[in-house]
Amino acid sequence: MKSDLSTLMRERGLDALVISNPDGLAAVNAAFTYFVGAAHVTQGHIIVKAEAGLPSSEPLTLNLQPSTLLIHQPMERDEAARAGLRLHSLGGYDMRDILRAAGGDRLAAQVELMRRLFGDLGVSGRVGFYGVDQRGASFAFLNALAEAGFVEVVVEHENDVVSRARETKDAGEAALIRQTCRLTERVIGAAREFLRGHRAAGDMLVKPGGDPLTVGDVKAFVRVEQARLGLDDPGFIFSIGRDAGVPHSAGTASDVIRLGRAIIFDIFPRLPGGYHADITRTWCLGYAPDDIQRAYQDVLRVHDRAEAMFDARRPAWEYQEMACDLFEAAGHRTVRDGPGVTAGYAHSLGHGFGLAVHEPPTLRLKGLTGDEPLPPGAVITNEPGLYYPDLGWGVRVEDDYWLDPAGGVERLTEFDRDLVVPM
Amino acid sequence: MKSDLSTLMRERGLDALVISNPDGLAAVNAAFTYFVGAAHVTQGHIIVKAEAGLPSSEPLTLNLQPSTLLIHQPMERDEAARAGLRLHSLGGYDMRDILRAAGGDRLAAQVELMRRLFGDLGVSGRVGFYGVDQRGASFAFLNALAEAGFVEVVVEHENDVVSRARETKDAGEAALIRQTCRLTERVIGAAREFLRGHRAAGDMLVKPGGDPLTVGDVKAFVRVEQARLGLDDPGFIFSIGRDAGVPHSAGTASDVIRLGRAIIFDIFPRLPGGYHADITRTWCLGYAPDDIQRAYQDVLRVHDRAEAMFDARRPAWEYQEMACDLFEAAGHRTVRDGPGVTAGYAHSLGHGFGLAVHEPPTLRLKGLTGDEPLPPGAVITNEPGLYYPDLGWGVRVEDDYWLDPAGGVERLTEFDRDLVVPM
Repeated sequence: MKSDLSTLMRERGLDALVISNPDGLAAVNAAFTYFVGAAHVTQGHIIVKAEAGLPSSEPLTLNLQPSTLLIHQPMERDEAARAGLRLHSLGGYDMRDILRAAGGDRLAAQVELMRRLFGDLGVSGRVGFYGVDQRGASFAFLNALAEAGFVEVVVEHENDVVSRARETKDAGEAALIRQTCRLTERVIGAAREFLRGHRAAGDMLVKPGGDPLTVGDVKAFVRVEQARLGLDDPGFIFSIGRDAGVPHSAGTASDVIRLGRAIIFDIFPRLPGGYHADITRTWCLGYAPDDIQRAYQDVLRVHDRAEAMFDARRPAWEYQEMACDLFEAAGHRTVRDGPGVTAGYAHSLGHGFGLAVHEPPTLRLKGLTGDEPLPPGAVITNEPGLYYPDLGWGVRVEDDYWLDPAGGVERLTEFDRDLVVPM
Repeated sequence: MKSDLSTLMRERGLDALVISNPDGLAAVNAAFTYFVGAAHVTQGHIIVKAEAGLPSSEPLTLNLQPSTLLIHQPMERDEAARAGLRLHSLGGYDMRDILRAAGGDRLAAQVELMRRLFGDLGVSGRVGFYGVDQRGASFAFLNALAEAGFVEVVVEHENDVVSRARETKDAGEAALIRQTCRLTERVIGAAREFLRGHRAAGDMLVKPGGDPLTVGDVKAFVRVEQARLGLDDPGFIFSIGRDAGVPHSAGTASDVIRLGRAIIFDIFPRLPGGYHADITRTWCLGYAPDDIQRAYQDVLRVHDRAEAMFDARRPAWEYQEMACDLFEAAGHRTVRDGPGVTAGYAHSLGHGFGLAVHEPPTLRLKGLTGDEPLPPGAVITNEPGLYYPDLGWGVRVEDDYWLDPAGGVERLTEFDRDLVVPM
């Protein structure tokens, strides 16, 4: 969590962090959103400086106000102010002058801008760089900056300090995720009522005019419901029949909604600049065929077992190994047979989430997930599923959990897991 | 445009392009979207191989089918198929084995996966790398790949072959942008009717229950309208009064809608996986005060002049210099006084757009924009504005244009520019 940042910086010997947000990438730049929240800052940098002068044996308390700066464009000064950080405007740096001094070399000009910024803001020593950018731009800029030598460029390939802090959530963040879960469940409930509001003609749901109800119709309804509740829509899965048998198939708009087919609805919106939820329900309208019923019971068994196991002690791979044990005992193939398995249990048991839909930790097999336990504060999904595309179905149930720092485990989702939707 | 890719690759001596899409970044990874469109591929790589065996003096026609591959996760095979490219599944590469062989080093494992992929797909020689990723991951991966030496890693810092191809739009792309413009104008028109549907009590619009209508209410309406039309919402600006005087202020939800105040509505949605529009209108409900009227006329004069000037011959900085000339002659300060100007003309005249809201080229001052003319095929905005936050207002008008490859200039937007909205 954010309060770990000072300790993480000291452990890694970092004097400052620079989290950049190039134009156009803010929607997925979670490391930047972590500091600015919902403030509509389309371009800029966060600079976190280590607190100086404290004895190194004491845990540092990071007071974000004085040590965290937001470098912003002058025309975004009002939006920047909403972030509640110390502001520093780029209005004082004339890129025409800097470009001229750099002989028109735009890369050199970027390095020079950084040199001036660091000088004005007292940034020196070992500096880590974070945030998303074009691959070519990152490579060229960081190499040029390292060569310029006015700071020591520290690159953390994975498990960097910002990701590490984000991996655990404090009570405030958990509350925000809980809020998104409630809103998301309202969308799920509204979608189920929308389906139930249609009559069946034969095995097919039809609209008032008599046309068949399609996946496209339901998706349009869900998009509007999300917007009505103020939720950002990063896309969602609403698939039926064979599509439900392929975990990441988003669904085919022209597919007709029929009774007795498995519908997978996997939805993971967030409030603007906020935290996601990630919830999946499987429904059969009217009735569920026996094979789907049985597979669903197998999935619930794994789901319940994982929920009962969650704690901050056992190695994180134990959950997925357990899931494979149970599924194999029930006669299903699993990812233990290799990554190409498409019939049976074909993905990981869960993943962390927060400002991004997928974050560490992951619940995968031994060798793919490390031996570390889930850290206290982790927010993770529990989403076993079974997939039989050739039989024309798949099932998955996904709930969200917070391992609170005091050692408890809280299920953040509340929506019922009923497979059959009475029509 | 895409048909330029072969020529660009040959000019730059590139044997292959690798455009990667790490998990979670697809929404802004325009270089990847360029190849997969609306297909819901959350992770993967595009590999474009140069056609072999053609005489180098001939312009190459890039047949995307045989030479462009989409490397995908097995559980996204159906979505990948929607992209219409040659597919290659990652299901044949067991990351447990690769990780084990790499002694658990995840960076080395990524390099090894790339080595196997390149071997299987015949990728060698000079290879360029594109797409967005975390800065640390890009830096570490590309440096490790360069060190491994099985291909020559080519990094293009700016103006890379993919950006360069995307900078010009063919007739098919222009048609998609025209379509988004029509949908966006429906949202703008609906918002204006929504405002007009409220009665005024004094200078304030009120809702049926008597509460004042707020910016938050209008924003909620616009979000739902966008969703109803199937448009993705990357955020928009709806600001009134002083907020309208700050170009990138997104608007304050609690601000009350009043008669005679400047409202700036800047909206730039897209269809999922598709092309943006980018349109701004300024409205005064009921009447417009004299100073706003005059400034609006100054803005329209620059807007009209730029529209009349657009062509593929004059240096791209001429438009912004013209805008500053006209605004200064009318007594306004401009960005020629430096980047810190906040009262007057405080931004660039326009920018390219397409799969991203901001793309090359830009219409900025001499020294910030190069001497090259706008390329035939460019799609650009024309968006002069004047800002007086201390007086409590700002005005801007933004339209979109396509410089068609035959030499014509088409305004893609059609919405009227009426300042006063009769109530």
